[in-house]
Amino acid sequence: MDREEIIDLHKKHNGVLEIKAVLPVNNAEDLERAYTPGVAELSKLIQSDSDKKNELTISGKLVAVVTDGSAVLGLGNIGPQGGLPVVEGKALLYKELANVNAIPVAVEQTSVSEFVQTIKNISGSFAGIHLEDIEAPRCFEIENQLNQVLDVPVYHDDQEGTAIVVLAGLINAAKVVDKKLSDLRIVINGAGASGLATAKLLANIGIKQITLVDKKGIIRNESNSLNHYQLDLAKTLNSNEIGMTLKDALIGQDVLIGLSVGNVVTEAMVQSMADKPIIFALANPIPEIDPKIAQKAGAAVIATGSSAYPNQVNNILAFPGLFKGLLESKMKHFDLELELRIAKSLAGMISKPTAKNIVPSVFDKSVVKSVVAAVKQCK
Amino acid sequence: MDREEIIDLHKKHNGVLEIKAVLPVNNAEDLERAYTPGVAELSKLIQSDSDKKNELTISGKLVAVVTDGSAVLGLGNIGPQGGLPVVEGKALLYKELANVNAIPVAVEQTSVSEFVQTIKNISGSFAGIHLEDIEAPRCFEIENQLNQVLDVPVYHDDQEGTAIVVLAGLINAAKVVDKKLSDLRIVINGAGASGLATAKLLANIGIKQITLVDKKGIIRNESNSLNHYQLDLAKTLNSNEIGMTLKDALIGQDVLIGLSVGNVVTEAMVQSMADKPIIFALANPIPEIDPKIAQKAGAAVIATGSSAYPNQVNNILAFPGLFKGLLESKMKHFDLELELRIAKSLAGMISKPTAKNIVPSVFDKSVVKSVVAAVKQCK
Repeated sequence: MDREEIIDLHKKHNGVLEIKAVLPVNNAEDLERAYTPGVAELSKLIQSDSDKKNELTISGKLVAVVTDGSAVLGLGNIGPQGGLPVVEGKALLYKELANVNAIPVAVEQTSVSEFVQTIKNISGSFAGIHLEDIEAPRCFEIENQLNQVLDVPVYHDDQEGTAIVVLAGLINAAKVVDKKLSDLRIVINGAGASGLATAKLLANIGIKQITLVDKKGIIRNESNSLNHYQLDLAKTLNSNEIGMTLKDALIGQDVLIGLSVGNVVTEAMVQSMADKPIIFALANPIPEIDPKIAQKAGAAVIATGSSAYPNQVNNILAFPGLFKGLLESKMKHFDLELELRIAKSLAGMISKPTAKNIVPSVFDKSVVKSVVAAVKQCK
Repeated sequence: MDREEIIDLHKKHNGVLEIKAVLPVNNAEDLERAYTPGVAELSKLIQSDSDKKNELTISGKLVAVVTDGSAVLGLGNIGPQGGLPVVEGKALLYKELANVNAIPVAVEQTSVSEFVQTIKNISGSFAGIHLEDIEAPRCFEIENQLNQVLDVPVYHDDQEGTAIVVLAGLINAAKVVDKKLSDLRIVINGAGASGLATAKLLANIGIKQITLVDKKGIIRNESNSLNHYQLDLAKTLNSNEIGMTLKDALIGQDVLIGLSVGNVVTEAMVQSMADKPIIFALANPIPEIDPKIAQKAGAAVIATGSSAYPNQVNNILAFPGLFKGLLESKMKHFDLELELRIAKSLAGMISKPTAKNIVPSVFDKSVVKSVVAAVKQCK
C-alpha cells in the first residue's frame, strides 16, 4: 500500500476510531434510563463513593494514550498534532488486540509541571495513562511525577514496553546461542527513554556487563554531558571501558540492542563481536543493520521491530495485554518485577526457540492472554 | 425502571459508551496501513500542515463533553466524578441522535485560569468543547476565555442550549395565545447560567419586558450582591419593578420561564399573571409547578423539561444538531444570530402550534436535520 492509499484510507474514516453507544436512545424510556433522570442516581452514588465511577462510567475502562509529539519514532519532535496518528494507532491496537478502550490525547509541549498538572486535572476521566513518544529526560520526570500524584496506572510504552519485549527476546536468544543470560555482554545503542529503561531492567535481573552508547559515545560514569538519569544508571553498569564509539563498544560483546537510529552498524562491526552474536536491530522504520548483512556477517540471532523479518521484537507484544491485566486486576502501579514476569511469559510461549523464532507473533491471539495472566500473578 | 435496575444497567456495560475500531488489525498488512509504518506518512503530513489532523485523525470529529461537576442539574456541586454520568449521557445522545462522536471529560475544580489552560493544553485532541454543569459565574469566564484561546467551537449547553430551546418554544407559545413575541412580559426564575443566557437571547431579539429573579429576589440594576454578568444584563432589561419576590414579579406578566428549582410556583401565582399565561416549568427532575395544577390555574400553554408531559422543552432538541452542523461546516465560533436561527428552525417544524404541541419531539429524526440546516445557513 503506497503513501497516497494510506492517506486516503485514514481520510475516508477521519482516523481509525469512533465512539460507540452501548445503549439505544429511541424513546422516552430509553432516555430515562440512559440519561435523565436515571443518571442522577449514578451521580448521587458516585458523590457518596467516588470509586463507583469506575464501574458506572466509561472512565473505569478508558485508557488515555498521551503524547506531546516530542520524540516520535523515526521523526523526532514533530509536535503534539503530528504525534496524534501514532497515539490513535496505539489506541486502535488496544481495541483490536485486547478489547481495551483507549483514546488518543495530544498535549501541548508545556513545562513538565504543567504537563503533569494538565493530566492530573483530567485523570478522573480515565482508568490509566499510556505515555507515548515523549523525549528523554522529560519523559522520566513526567512519569515519576504522574506516578506520585495519580491514582491510576501510568505506563510509558517507549520505556517499559521496550524493556519488556527486549528481555523476552533476549531470554530465548540466549537459549538459541547456548549462553547464560546473566553472563551476556550487552551493548545498547541509544541512551534515551527506551535505552535507559531496557538497561535498567536487564541490570535489575542480574546482567552485569551492559554498555550504553549514544551519539556522543559510550555512557560512562564520569561523562559530563549526561542527564542525572543517565548518570545514575551509568554508576550501576559495568560498561565496556575500551574506546569511545559504538564500533569500539561492540568488540568482543555478545549482544547489540539497537534502540536509536538506523544504518549505524556495519558487517565488520558484527564480525568484531564475540562468537554467535545476537543482533536486535530495533530502530524503526530502518534497522541499525540490514538483517541480511547481519546474517552474512555471522549473527546467530537477528531480531527487528518490523513484521517484514522473523523475530519481530515489538512493544505490541506487551502493552495491550499489560493494560488489560492492570485494568482487570485493578492494579494502580507496577514495577520491574511485573516487567520481568511479562517478559518471561512472552518468552515462555516459544517452547523450542530457534534463530528464526524467539518471540510469538504480534497477531497470535494467545499473546494478550499470556501477558494478562502474568500481570494478574503480580497482584 | 427503578434505581437498582438503572445502576445495574450502567454497571453491566461499565458506562454507556465504548471505543470502536474502524480498521481491523489481523495481519502484517493491516498493521502496516493502520499503524506503522503507515502513520509516519500521516504524521509528516500533519507536521507540515497541522490542519490535516482534522481529516486524518479522530480529533477532527471528536467533541469533548467537559464538566467540573460544580452545578449538576438538581444536585448542585457534586464534584467532577459525580458529574461524569451526566457528561457521558450527553456523549451518548450525541452519538445516538446525531452520529456525532463525543467523549466525557471530568476536570478537577481548579481556578478558572487553570481550567482554561488544562482544556487548551489538550484541545488539539478535539474538534469542539461542550461545557456542561459548570456553576455561574465561573462558567461565563471559562467560556469567554476558551473562546479567545481555542481554535475550535466552545458551547455551554446550560447557557446556549437552554436559550435556544426556550426561544423555540416561546415563538410557538406566543402564536397559541395570539400575543406578539416582542410584546411578551417575561419572568425568568433563575439567574445562573441558563437564566442569564436565555435573558440575553430574548433581549437580543427585541423582547423588552424581561424580569430576572433568583433566590434573593428580582435582579435589579442597583442590587449589590450581583456578579458583573448579572449586573451588565440587568442594565439592559426592563424589569418589573414592583415588589421583591418571584410572587411579586409574576403579577400581570405573560410568561414564566423556570430555570432554577422545582416547586416554587403556586396555583395563586399563576392566577395572578396576565390573561392566557405561558408556563415553562423547566426545572428537572421536579418542575416549578405540577403541570396539572398550572392548567387548573388557567395556564394556556405549559411546557416542562420532561418527556412525561406534552411540550418537552429540552436542550436535547438543540445540541446534537448544533454540533453536527458546526463540525460539518467547520465553523469555529457561533453567536446569538445562530441561536436565533436554530430556535426559529425548531419552532418552524410545528406547522400549526397548539397548546399541547409547541416543539417537536426530541426523538423526531428530522430535528437534527433541521438544526444542522439552520447552522449551515449561518456560515
